[in-house]
Amino acid sequence: MDRFDCVSPLDFRYYDDKLRAIFDDYLTESARVRSEAMVEAATTRVLARMGVCSEAVADEVAHAAEVVSPEEVAEEEARIHHNIRALVNSMKKHVSDEAKPYIHFTLTSFDVIDTATAWRFKNAALKGLLPLLEELESLLIALARREAETLQVGRTHGQHGSPVTFGLTIAEYVSRLGGRIEAIRTTAEDLRGKISGAVGAYNASSIMLDDPLEFEGQVLAELGLTPSPASTQVVEAEFVTDFMHALTSCFSVLANLADDMRHLQRTEISEVAEAFEAEQVGSSTMPHKRNPWNFENVKSMWKLFMPRMITVYSDQISEHQRDLSNSASQRFLPEVIVGLANSVMRLTKIMGRLVTDAERMRENLRMTEGMIGAEPAYILLAAHGHPDAHEAVRKLTLQAQETGRPLGELLQESEELAEYWAQITERQREIILDPAQYTGIAARKTRLLCDMWEERLGL
Amino acid sequence: MDRFDCVSPLDFRYYDDKLRAIFDDYLTESARVRSEAMVEAATTRVLARMGVCSEAVADEVAHAAEVVSPEEVAEEEARIHHNIRALVNSMKKHVSDEAKPYIHFTLTSFDVIDTATAWRFKNAALKGLLPLLEELESLLIALARREAETLQVGRTHGQHGSPVTFGLTIAEYVSRLGGRIEAIRTTAEDLRGKISGAVGAYNASSIMLDDPLEFEGQVLAELGLTPSPASTQVVEAEFVTDFMHALTSCFSVLANLADDMRHLQRTEISEVAEAFEAEQVGSSTMPHKRNPWNFENVKSMWKLFMPRMITVYSDQISEHQRDLSNSASQRFLPEVIVGLANSVMRLTKIMGRLVTDAERMRENLRMTEGMIGAEPAYILLAAHGHPDAHEAVRKLTLQAQETGRPLGELLQESEELAEYWAQITERQREIILDPAQYTGIAARKTRLLCDMWEERLGL
Amino acid sequence: MDRFDCVSPLDFRYYDDKLRAIFDDYLTESARVRSEAMVEAATTRVLARMGVCSEAVADEVAHAAEVVSPEEVAEEEARIHHNIRALVNSMKKHVSDEAKPYIHFTLTSFDVIDTATAWRFKNAALKGLLPLLEELESLLIALARREAETLQVGRTHGQHGSPVTFGLTIAEYVSRLGGRIEAIRTTAEDLRGKISGAVGAYNASSIMLDDPLEFEGQVLAELGLTPSPASTQVVEAEFVTDFMHALTSCFSVLANLADDMRHLQRTEISEVAEAFEAEQVGSSTMPHKRNPWNFENVKSMWKLFMPRMITVYSDQISEHQRDLSNSASQRFLPEVIVGLANSVMRLTKIMGRLVTDAERMRENLRMTEGMIGAEPAYILLAAHGHPDAHEAVRKLTLQAQETGRPLGELLQESEELAEYWAQITERQREIILDPAQYTGIAARKTRLLCDMWEERLGL
Amino acid sequence: MDRFDCVSPLDFRYYDDKLRAIFDDYLTESARVRSEAMVEAATTRVLARMGVCSEAVADEVAHAAEVVSPEEVAEEEARIHHNIRALVNSMKKHVSDEAKPYIHFTLTSFDVIDTATAWRFKNAALKGLLPLLEELESLLIALARREAETLQVGRTHGQHGSPVTFGLTIAEYVSRLGGRIEAIRTTAEDLRGKISGAVGAYNASSIMLDDPLEFEGQVLAELGLTPSPASTQVVEAEFVTDFMHALTSCFSVLANLADDMRHLQRTEISEVAEAFEAEQVGSSTMPHKRNPWNFENVKSMWKLFMPRMITVYSDQISEHQRDLSNSASQRFLPEVIVGLANSVMRLTKIMGRLVTDAERMRENLRMTEGMIGAEPAYILLAAHGHPDAHEAVRKLTLQAQETGRPLGELLQESEELAEYWAQITERQREIILDPAQYTGIAARKTRLLCDMWEERLGL
Repeated sequence: MDRFDCVSPLDFRYYDDKLRAIFDDYLTESARVRSEAMVEAATTRVLARMGVCSEAVADEVAHAAEVVSPEEVAEEEARIHHNIRALVNSMKKHVSDEAKPYIHFTLTSFDVIDTATAWRFKNAALKGLLPLLEELESLLIALARREAETLQVGRTHGQHGSPVTFGLTIAEYVSRLGGRIEAIRTTAEDLRGKISGAVGAYNASSIMLDDPLEFEGQVLAELGLTPSPASTQVVEAEFVTDFMHALTSCFSVLANLADDMRHLQRTEISEVAEAFEAEQVGSSTMPHKRNPWNFENVKSMWKLFMPRMITVYSDQISEHQRDLSNSASQRFLPEVIVGLANSVMRLTKIMGRLVTDAERMRENLRMTEGMIGAEPAYILLAAHGHPDAHEAVRKLTLQAQETGRPLGELLQESEELAEYWAQITERQREIILDPAQYTGIAARKTRLLCDMWEERLGL
Repeated sequence: MDRFDCVSPLDFRYYDDKLRAIFDDYLTESARVRSEAMVEAATTRVLARMGVCSEAVADEVAHAAEVVSPEEVAEEEARIHHNIRALVNSMKKHVSDEAKPYIHFTLTSFDVIDTATAWRFKNAALKGLLPLLEELESLLIALARREAETLQVGRTHGQHGSPVTFGLTIAEYVSRLGGRIEAIRTTAEDLRGKISGAVGAYNASSIMLDDPLEFEGQVLAELGLTPSPASTQVVEAEFVTDFMHALTSCFSVLANLADDMRHLQRTEISEVAEAFEAEQVGSSTMPHKRNPWNFENVKSMWKLFMPRMITVYSDQISEHQRDLSNSASQRFLPEVIVGLANSVMRLTKIMGRLVTDAERMRENLRMTEGMIGAEPAYILLAAHGHPDAHEAVRKLTLQAQETGRPLGELLQESEELAEYWAQITERQREIILDPAQYTGIAARKTRLLCDMWEERLGL
Repeated sequence: MDRFDCVSPLDFRYYDDKLRAIFDDYLTESARVRSEAMVEAATTRVLARMGVCSEAVADEVAHAAEVVSPEEVAEEEARIHHNIRALVNSMKKHVSDEAKPYIHFTLTSFDVIDTATAWRFKNAALKGLLPLLEELESLLIALARREAETLQVGRTHGQHGSPVTFGLTIAEYVSRLGGRIEAIRTTAEDLRGKISGAVGAYNASSIMLDDPLEFEGQVLAELGLTPSPASTQVVEAEFVTDFMHALTSCFSVLANLADDMRHLQRTEISEVAEAFEAEQVGSSTMPHKRNPWNFENVKSMWKLFMPRMITVYSDQISEHQRDLSNSASQRFLPEVIVGLANSVMRLTKIMGRLVTDAERMRENLRMTEGMIGAEPAYILLAAHGHPDAHEAVRKLTLQAQETGRPLGELLQESEELAEYWAQITERQREIILDPAQYTGIAARKTRLLCDMWEERLGL
Repeated sequence: MDRFDCVSPLDFRYYDDKLRAIFDDYLTESARVRSEAMVEAATTRVLARMGVCSEAVADEVAHAAEVVSPEEVAEEEARIHHNIRALVNSMKKHVSDEAKPYIHFTLTSFDVIDTATAWRFKNAALKGLLPLLEELESLLIALARREAETLQVGRTHGQHGSPVTFGLTIAEYVSRLGGRIEAIRTTAEDLRGKISGAVGAYNASSIMLDDPLEFEGQVLAELGLTPSPASTQVVEAEFVTDFMHALTSCFSVLANLADDMRHLQRTEISEVAEAFEAEQVGSSTMPHKRNPWNFENVKSMWKLFMPRMITVYSDQISEHQRDLSNSASQRFLPEVIVGLANSVMRLTKIMGRLVTDAERMRENLRMTEGMIGAEPAYILLAAHGHPDAHEAVRKLTLQAQETGRPLGELLQESEELAEYWAQITERQREIILDPAQYTGIAARKTRLLCDMWEERLGL
């Protein structure tokens, strides 16, 4: 297949060589077949251990699992229209007649499929996605620490509010992302397999084995998994659902970070910028443009993959011991992991070369700094007994806007407020008059959050 | 790229050779590049017509559009990170120095991208998808006519209601699908292009041309398109949104049909069956099973693609003259066409070999036929003046259930109802006593619907 | 019920007195009961016309439909747990024994419910929502015309691009909203009813009437409706689905407008502002703030109601002649109309008092005006034969950024470009050097769009 | 407000008296105001404890929080258009001048709103929803135990598979529901508050207090809450997002149960039934019908509320220190709790009077019991060395279907299989020939699951 013949941009465009190196063992069609063969091999291994067949048979099956190729399975499936039976038939070709019966012995297809899926998603998360996320997290921690004291105006509703530091702005993402890393780890580690047969009652295994629950536990243990408590033909959907929720809610955090960064790059704001490569073209027709297209791309991928949760919730519903209407839809779940990983790598690259403009942050703050004193003024007036300080200050800010004079001056001149102003300490007056001093515990909290998450995540 | 290295099952599994033969010219990455080159060529052609460059230049560019390969564009993009500038640079390599300036002349990237997308989706729909849908529609019409008189119980809430015919059951899908075919055709034909420049004000073209609106109209006419009324950097989103809605709402109709067919295959119902191929395996472990997996697959694909409308609605929002956060997400739209087309072809295959069991339909009806008379009985009693016929009949049905006796007998014996029964005509009594005669105008309406849609769609 | 005991904020907070005055006849629970009673009355009227009962009976039923109260229906429903049977029982109490049988005669519940819903949504749209939308549209047209020449920088990716006029910015919303108004009108007018009985085969009506299709048509005509072509127990879902899509895609356009307006209010941009009322408080703690909360509210309501389309698409699927799993969900559809109407009225109020700051728009443009000439420069250089004008200008813009000198100066000084510069006309040089002249046909197109939509919508 | 004037069916129809008795303290508009007043009171209490004001002031404010009415707050909001400032103004009317400044002292609106929301959702879950869920869980446990041995055919793809017991069918829901109860508890207990001020940097509180983090912790502790680690103006969205996910994924489990139960009520299956009340009407026109409308209602509510997660995920994105576009949408979140609670109570009512028909279950199983031996036969043949047992049995089942003869007979007669049959033990032959014995460990696992969840949930 020529890659230009792809209809899905994921394989053509976004699942690039770096991602392939990380995820090919878990998320491709090849990986699917290999992991399913691994389940077959693990099953026969435990059958041997329990005395149902010989260890030699288990060795043969293990070998077959290694050598069976996706190509031959696909050919067989084209013939018989059943993917697991195709795998079984293909593996049988690689073993002796004695071993043949012990491939897929007492299993149903979804013992294999759901167990293999759990193995693949768990490993894709633990060995692929989480290291990528931790790399981004570490980078954000370093950035937050570097900018812990960098003054920036806090923006609510797109309007200037009270000042923060750019370090705190980033540290809040450190914390939110940290929480999602934990959620992904927890739910990935809790992905479950099942070896409970065609309707979940261990019908087949219990005619051959005394303790089918023990059998199930041992097979899954071979793969580093544990059994779901109440599988039918399939693993109950909640384990995968929780995992997908963790991925999706993590994606939202990244999309939020990307949105913030691209807005901070608006021409009128220009507090951060993405360093461009020498040859890079910003616009096909406006040669001067520097577009935040990487951040836009993250938001776009979120818009694409977030609604997939509707599919996931819909797939929680499966009739009776199961219907197959979740089969095709679940084949597409690896796409979400790839989509998220692509965005993580993209953010790591871009945040890693983010240029911050502390001087511009200070200038932007200056636009409204005369007004920022309004909040501490109102609080201190109230603290010293003014009965309606909020209203008094609100009127003064209107006056400041009309006259163009600084709020601080008007405050100091106001006869009505004189008695309260007199009670305000020198330090407090400084804060009212100089917004740069009104950052609360921004820098301290930045460091607290960085320390906390570094420790919690073992970075 | 090895197809087994795909992470998206669409290319690996569902976009098969038959679909490729139909859609490769419109929906692949290659097709994207080719169609964008076509827009460039059309633009230069109109520039020549308007005297800005020579016809010879336009011929050169037309040739470059034909020979430029996706591979060279991809290589250039890897270097400069801008896909349309990469296309332009690549095309320039195939023309003389004189022609070079007239490639992409006065255009912005999304003049090319959005116009090419409109061309591709319009043609994919009109030349690819609609013929497939019409084939399915024709097949359903034939099936409905064949089964126009085949008695089947109507089911509401999964419970037996009044009888219909299986033909009517199918004809209702003929009508719903017919309506969606019209919706897809209408919205596909209304997909629009734009040649209005970087911010939609024709800034660039108006410095070179007297009538930039005429220029836009002529370029799009080369491609069989018309301009959108109010593009910014991009075509306003509603045209694609309406098209995607038509596709999605069509997919729901198919999913409903698939659901109904698989429920009619339930072991206890067994009114229809999918003819199996000789070698086909139903279950890896239960060799006797015949699973309606094709119908389940259609439902599953619907669960996968229907939520994509959330992405589409989200992409209606683009900041100011546009932000790029709809770019990646819109690259994935062809997937929806392929997903739908796959389900259409699947249904055509399966419905074409659907086995219907008229005898079983009649047997199922017999399970409750004693009760089916309840509705006409209540209506006729009411018509002859019974003041609370519904309640009277409801009590009789409870009595029938308790005693196991047919409702008809109880009706005829009832002293309370005797005076009303006496007024009921012989023909009406027959209908009460024989549910097979209580099918209303099912057969007639079946034919009406088939005739109407055959005519409306020109089948 | 105390309104403070509401759990849904819609009735408590958003469905205010103005909206109630417009929609109470169509969208409340009362309206539901009244409209269902109207369907019963219309049915008996046509029965009389067809000779099944007397006109006097039809008059009685019409009177019962007027006097029956939601309260008595609710009481009866609490007793028998069936809403339409409760309506029928309640209406019977208001008529003579002779008339009783002809209430709900040959009907099934969803003949009444779906027909009444079509009547309510159609009228809510045509008489309530569309006038509100047209008021907003007229207001936007007036605004666009007023600002047709007001210079504003076009923004793509949040970055300054080429200039437009603020009038064109608004006119593009005029056009998009105009298109949605047409879509809502078309789909509302196409909402359908049905009188085809319990399984859609006219089983009951055909035992009493020679031409049940004629009967259905006449009943619906009484209510200004036409029959759906292929109802089962219910009207096929596509008519309501298309209507909901029109509403939802319209909501997206409003959300986009709201997003743009709130970004233009960012402190650093400040091109527009919402006029505040004298007593209005912006922030509970920052007395100086003016938050664009009305625009934010529109976006928020869109986030709430847009995903309702998932429910709507899911409700397209109904098993066999129908299952009831769409019943509760469809009861909530009026919420979407109310949510949209609330946002329309809100935008009308806010856009009607929008303060635009033309001076600030010009100042913002000045930030990058030295660069805006890059696009026309590149085009004109190319037009005069420069083989790689885009690259030449891109390098010059980098030089301008490094040196802080205007691009125009660098262009005029460039020895490399001198031969091309010499060929550029005086008028074209002016455009390169003065971005205010590089607005293409912005003003002209603004007026074209306003004229076109005024005419198309008959405003 | 007349309840019939509601446009939302939730308040009119679904939030009934029983639910009101449970949730009115947490989920109504009244509860919102009261809980916000509680946050104000808690804040002043801690200010007193820290010496900023007197305990007498704190007492006054506590009293004001109790007496302030939603009506007066609503009136004030109508005047000043700011809901928290309206609350503060209203509370001030109930205290002395000395106390006035200490209401809302150093707080921002969303300190109050988000903290109150956390308090309300946490208590609504722990005190309202979880007891309802545990009641349903206990009922399902009792049902599962009662039916632990009741033979039922397992259904996959709507087709008969191997047998299970009805107890196991239910026990699997016990387990899935148990898991969701734990998820709801965990995420509800983890809902967080914040007292970090207008931009999350504790700007205001740090000018008055030495340790604003300690202050935040103490205020929240008053309400049984803990601080979120990294609030901006608002609590970071992930805590509520995880809670909503727990609710939604729980809703899916209930919808799945409802779907299964209504399919088991299909006329042709009839394994369970909902006991009807004496006066209850099943159909307005088909007096004999017993529709599973309660189960259908649960599915319908799921279709309505599940897509709300799109809103929730969208609300994870808030610009910079926050934008208000999540405000209206989050006001509607209590609806999801009510929708879920309504469905839980409905299921408890219906499952509590579920009639199961063990005889019918056995009859249904009998339809295919001749085939059920296919699975154990294939396994035992394989175990005794048949190289392609699956294929051998598959052919035998085709033969059985063609001849109408039991599979068991054909097995025993087959010459080809004779050598393998001879090796099968008597007990194993019994299982092949009598499907009632082929239930694996269904009954045992039923009890294991019931015991486990009873213990884990402390029921």
